[in-house]
Amino acid sequence: MLIYLRPRLPPAAIMKNRPVTIKDIARQLNISVSTVSRALRGSADINPETKKSVIDLAAELDYQPNSIALSLVKSKTNIVGVIIPDITIPFFASAIKGIQEVASAAGYNVMICQSSESEEMEVNNTQALLSSRVAGLIVSVSGKTKNFDHFKTIKRRGVPLVFFDRVCEEIEASKVLADDYNGAFQAVEHLIKMGSKRIAHLAGPDLLKLTQNRKRGYIDALQRANLPVDLSLIKYVDFNRKQAYEATNQLMALPQPPDAIFAISDRVAIGAIMALKDKNIRIPEEVAVVGFGNEATSAILDPALTTVMQYPFEMGIIAAQLFLEQVNVDLETYIPKTEILNTDLILNKSSRRR
Amino acid sequence: MLIYLRPRLPPAAIMKNRPVTIKDIARQLNISVSTVSRALRGSADINPETKKSVIDLAAELDYQPNSIALSLVKSKTNIVGVIIPDITIPFFASAIKGIQEVASAAGYNVMICQSSESEEMEVNNTQALLSSRVAGLIVSVSGKTKNFDHFKTIKRRGVPLVFFDRVCEEIEASKVLADDYNGAFQAVEHLIKMGSKRIAHLAGPDLLKLTQNRKRGYIDALQRANLPVDLSLIKYVDFNRKQAYEATNQLMALPQPPDAIFAISDRVAIGAIMALKDKNIRIPEEVAVVGFGNEATSAILDPALTTVMQYPFEMGIIAAQLFLEQVNVDLETYIPKTEILNTDLILNKSSRRR
Repeated sequence: MLIYLRPRLPPAAIMKNRPVTIKDIARQLNISVSTVSRALRGSADINPETKKSVIDLAAELDYQPNSIALSLVKSKTNIVGVIIPDITIPFFASAIKGIQEVASAAGYNVMICQSSESEEMEVNNTQALLSSRVAGLIVSVSGKTKNFDHFKTIKRRGVPLVFFDRVCEEIEASKVLADDYNGAFQAVEHLIKMGSKRIAHLAGPDLLKLTQNRKRGYIDALQRANLPVDLSLIKYVDFNRKQAYEATNQLMALPQPPDAIFAISDRVAIGAIMALKDKNIRIPEEVAVVGFGNEATSAILDPALTTVMQYPFEMGIIAAQLFLEQVNVDLETYIPKTEILNTDLILNKSSRRR
Repeated sequence: MLIYLRPRLPPAAIMKNRPVTIKDIARQLNISVSTVSRALRGSADINPETKKSVIDLAAELDYQPNSIALSLVKSKTNIVGVIIPDITIPFFASAIKGIQEVASAAGYNVMICQSSESEEMEVNNTQALLSSRVAGLIVSVSGKTKNFDHFKTIKRRGVPLVFFDRVCEEIEASKVLADDYNGAFQAVEHLIKMGSKRIAHLAGPDLLKLTQNRKRGYIDALQRANLPVDLSLIKYVDFNRKQAYEATNQLMALPQPPDAIFAISDRVAIGAIMALKDKNIRIPEEVAVVGFGNEATSAILDPALTTVMQYPFEMGIIAAQLFLEQVNVDLETYIPKTEILNTDLILNKSSRRR
């Protein structure tokens, strides 16, 4: 990429979106803006020491020339980028339907990238979408992401950012998510009411706030009912059916196997059901199962699955609306919003003991 | 990101970054462009000495054929664009997994757009992906697309194009698809063997070759068994569960309702099953049901669904490979390939009468 600075400073309105400007550097070094500008352009008529201190500070502050920012802002497309962990999870497909409905109505195209639960892929996706000059990004974070610099880059570039479902707490951005804590609490409370005493939990990747919130709901429901919390009954399975199958086999091989399983998602619950069926363990008589997500097929599974209903389509709609409201505002002064959607427990045969 | 600021590069230096063209070779050897071109193509009417010096210089300068295409490639990204009709259909999600596996290994990012079965959206998707300078496009055609100009644009731009599953016959491009005719034939043959005599067909959008091939398989299987083809038993439902539900209700309200339903997809079969269940019609005793696609949940439905197994993941892998083999060749001389994947009939309770 060939970059060169323009001699002129960009309009103030654009500058507001930039965390660091030439003015900031000038102020901090107590020199003139034009000196900073010439230093950054490599002008020969600037004292080498001054030049060095300007360049060092620019590096330290992660200063980006405004001409780039300007051209980026000017050349934005009508594309909304979406990054999701796994396209085969119906939840995300439904959320994308919601995003697309709102985005299309507003004249935007939706481009979707899949991180495949990999931090590296998520970083690549972000770069690819930014290089496509997207007008905004809507992201559900991968279960393996530990470093959030790529999300900071999005913000630094002045590109509107919205998280949905799997949100990133560390980044200040608008968010829409389900009431994971209460959804889990109600699911486990229901299992207890149905007579379960040893309830296992197939949890998601522990890095995710969503996993932590659902696990907290599970633990609090047990404690509220004065049931012991047995950590050997909690297994982490990455939203993966095969892992859920194997974890269920491990649970059922315990000296004291569980009499119920609360799964982090319907897909995980299906893995558990398959393992139980393969061992001829009756559902719900011997082991009750509750999922999370109310995927399209949960009602016609055998047995039909009790599940926490989320509203992914609505979540997608809100995520897209949260993007749209950032399009024509000054992002510096925009105050991010967090929207939390209620869940509902859908009762079916997989947990109904009486 | 820290950007180093450089003075503007002189044109000559920029030139140096360009790939070597036939013109460079012609100029350096002081011969005509057409002589170079013919020499590189191995024409017999060129002096062998000239031919040798052209080939030697081409090797020395690391000349690569098709400089026009190459200069386009230069400005292309490492992004593969994928357009699918509906992200909520598990078949497409699996195909994308396959595409992504091959593309990622080759250093490509995958960007997915959804046409939502709309020709207009498909055109918009194509434009958006082309404007993102994708290195290639892998497309499964919408059920409503009648005009194929946008696919011609892709070809005209020298962007590699591959169709999968829902292919476009009118465009010369590489294709990978399932053996839809034989898959359907076997499914209907099986229903006949199980004793069905009035087999309905829930078909897809008639514009699609896939719909036509599966319907042909259905009709031929009936005729092979000397069963009448009753057009009132064929309903078109757009791969849509709700439409399938309603069409099934219409079928069951006929004076002579069907005793079996062959559905164009598992999703359509699920719509049929829901309609039958709501009317307390026993499956398979009163009406047998067969789907197409072997979606992840078909085995744990109630009743478990007999279905034609397709291999979407493998289809995605082949589609991506067909894209990759076009990346560094002269598309003018590339001969498109069509790969047809076998299907398998998976027997389950929904059709098993004896």
